[in-house]
Amino acid sequence: MERSSVAPMMTHLWSPMAAVSSAWQGKHNAQIAVAIGAASIVPSKPRVIIQIYKRNFSHDLIYRSGAFAVNYLREDQLDLISALGLVSGRDKDKLSDLAYDIKASGSPVLEDCWGYLDCRVTNVMDGGDMTCFLGEVLDGKIFNEEGPLWWRDAARRLPASVIQEWDRKINQEIEFSTTRMDQIDFSPWTPGERPPQE
Amino acid sequence: MERSSVAPMMTHLWSPMAAVSSAWQGKHNAQIAVAIGAASIVPSKPRVIIQIYKRNFSHDLIYRSGAFAVNYLREDQLDLISALGLVSGRDKDKLSDLAYDIKASGSPVLEDCWGYLDCRVTNVMDGGDMTCFLGEVLDGKIFNEEGPLWWRDAARRLPASVIQEWDRKINQEIEFSTTRMDQIDFSPWTPGERPPQE
Repeated sequence: MERSSVAPMMTHLWSPMAAVSSAWQGKHNAQIAVAIGAASIVPSKPRVIIQIYKRNFSHDLIYRSGAFAVNYLREDQLDLISALGLVSGRDKDKLSDLAYDIKASGSPVLEDCWGYLDCRVTNVMDGGDMTCFLGEVLDGKIFNEEGPLWWRDAARRLPASVIQEWDRKINQEIEFSTTRMDQIDFSPWTPGERPPQE
Repeated sequence: MERSSVAPMMTHLWSPMAAVSSAWQGKHNAQIAVAIGAASIVPSKPRVIIQIYKRNFSHDLIYRSGAFAVNYLREDQLDLISALGLVSGRDKDKLSDLAYDIKASGSPVLEDCWGYLDCRVTNVMDGGDMTCFLGEVLDGKIFNEEGPLWWRDAARRLPASVIQEWDRKINQEIEFSTTRMDQIDFSPWTPGERPPQE
């Protein structure tokens, strides 16, 4: 495989930056994600597909609750990349400093963001290192006229120290994914019943 | 749900325009798709997720062969949108007029495109109206300096007659999807063994 030739193609296949939020049995969290895709052409029944790494704290919350919300970041919300993307929900209640509402799915939705989609999980696919969640959009709203934040724009404007920390974290994730991504489990998913995969 | 508020968010979650090509037991095909997402952060093991509508001819070819290729369109390849997107492979051999190579996955890859990813299916998720295929990228290459074609740009440049035909086709697909998208099958997938879902 010509790695240098494939990599630039992949850059076009990531989504705008979002905080994916979730809650289960009194715990809640929000993490940064850029792997969110549209999954329905029916305007009255929108769906999205999101990928969440298995070792993330949010993974178990989403897997057990069967719910999540996608909160797209505004172009000026660079500070949330560090606050939600460089700290684990296992170490800190990342939502304690942020205003949020609980929506129909039971997930917390940030009051201050570009727009949100509140979702209920309708199917699940194992990807080895990550789980792919198909979500039905229960509700959603855009708060701003301007576009959402994309990583390529954030990367140009973030302080060097944050980029360095981000790269360090991504390299750890690459290491984890490399060892886990081929261990795919083909068992069926039963909504609400199956425990999260370790 | 505030439909007018959700729809503009979805527009940011579709991919560049691609011809998804496939082959199985002497049959081959290529269809237009805009639901392709990156699914790996490991540079040496790239992956993508694609969604293919169940009633498309390509669906069974991909499901049975366990392989597909993503051929991104160049900005000047508007003609392929009609040639591959408005005709079914059941009615016409759409590849008969196009130069292609058979790659490692067994899928035909267009010689003339922005770039391609040759993929083997590693897992499958039922979405009711569509199947979501997780694919390991075996090989890929970019042929052009400029970016790939996006629907928003194509829509501005396509003749009104093509847009009209495209809308007609999308409306048919919306009708099909509306009746089928809630019929999700949670059975496990066994690589290479399971027949395609009707």
